[in-house]
Amino acid sequence: MTADDVEARLRALEQQVGQLTDQIAVTQLIASYGPLVDAGSPEEVAALWSEDGSYQVEGWNMRSRAEVHAMVASDAHQNLIAGGAAHFLGPAQVNVHGDDAYAVCESLLVRRRDDRWVVARAGANHFTLRRIGGRWQITRRVTRALDGALEARALLTAAPLD
Amino acid sequence: MTADDVEARLRALEQQVGQLTDQIAVTQLIASYGPLVDAGSPEEVAALWSEDGSYQVEGWNMRSRAEVHAMVASDAHQNLIAGGAAHFLGPAQVNVHGDDAYAVCESLLVRRRDDRWVVARAGANHFTLRRIGGRWQITRRVTRALDGALEARALLTAAPLD
Amino acid sequence: MTADDVEARLRALEQQVGQLTDQIAVTQLIASYGPLVDAGSPEEVAALWSEDGSYQVEGWNMRSRAEVHAMVASDAHQNLIAGGAAHFLGPAQVNVHGDDAYAVCESLLVRRRDDRWVVARAGANHFTLRRIGGRWQITRRVTRALDGALEARALLTAAPLD
Repeated sequence: MTADDVEARLRALEQQVGQLTDQIAVTQLIASYGPLVDAGSPEEVAALWSEDGSYQVEGWNMRSRAEVHAMVASDAHQNLIAGGAAHFLGPAQVNVHGDDAYAVCESLLVRRRDDRWVVARAGANHFTLRRIGGRWQITRRVTRALDGALEARALLTAAPLD
Repeated sequence: MTADDVEARLRALEQQVGQLTDQIAVTQLIASYGPLVDAGSPEEVAALWSEDGSYQVEGWNMRSRAEVHAMVASDAHQNLIAGGAAHFLGPAQVNVHGDDAYAVCESLLVRRRDDRWVVARAGANHFTLRRIGGRWQITRRVTRALDGALEARALLTAAPLD
Repeated sequence: MTADDVEARLRALEQQVGQLTDQIAVTQLIASYGPLVDAGSPEEVAALWSEDGSYQVEGWNMRSRAEVHAMVASDAHQNLIAGGAAHFLGPAQVNVHGDDAYAVCESLLVRRRDDRWVVARAGANHFTLRRIGGRWQITRRVTRALDGALEARALLTAAPLD
């Protein structure tokens, strides 16, 4: 085994390990959204977004980390979770390309009603992420109800949105 | 450190990284099923199966990639998603052994009814996969309703099905 | 490239691969809980806990692996799953620190009622895990209904409890 062989194998390993690390980092970031938003923590939820990251979801059109913070802190959201709610996201399918990543998952908004819970919404979620300052951040998230409309179904591919 | 030491450590790393890569590849393949089938994309869903892969689920007994394609393209499926539906799969538990893999997860079929969604079925899913031509493919999937029957509960172990 | 460079790069890779391996092992352990408990397998569920591991969930306060075994084997649990039930856990958010790990996820208890399923409970889950004898084991799990109470919402951070 020559020094060149060692170098090539180390480089290949470093590249693969970097790819796996990114894949898991993005998967974990998305897995943290539901628990944090249901805990009602504006700081932690907002930190998942980039400073000018956006989040479009029925009734809300947030255009920055500060607006995501405001949504979580709002009476509307705090009352929702005080009544008993789970923003239940499914496992994300994640594609990483260098410093860019795309992910999709489905979600259920489950709300307490009397002695049980009801599914108030099933949603399609598309995430665009970017590594900024060495940390993965959401630069765009679009969520739509899976009500049969083509607009929602078009979100379900982990590729760049038009 | 001798050249033999370096070789042994490189080989161990390559083996472990290969294992993690396979684990994540199978997990991601399964995570893509729900979004793709709810998007209504016959090509992409069918490509998850091997050419002669099978998929048994109540009312359907598909025996090839072409039959999976036909199911997704069918009026029955297209009408289901046009009415608002999520094939919501939970996180898969995956066991990889060389070129074979076994995975299980639970699933919910959530359908729109008026202004909310209802859980039309909770299911047990067992996947058998094989690496074919360098790409993981489903060679067999069995899904049964979690209605209390032992047949469904027997699917919930990520080992070979007898 | 000097022998010291090779040593440093190998060591960095080994450390990173170890971290990814742990991350996936804990994620997989948690992903196996729902399928195993719905299969009704007391041995396999109990083996996820350490010998003196605990599990607190409404109506149950288990203080050992043996008590987890007894819960799964109990008439109460066996009747629940015989009626059709899914303990549907979402993707876990996992933080590993050496031989300790913390994880959170949300969960839905879905039960059959007539020709459909209802969400009988949405829950917050916090797991404390420890590597014991080279194997990750749950040393403490706390699950509470997401009914709006702060106690449940406080569980949703993958850090040590209190």
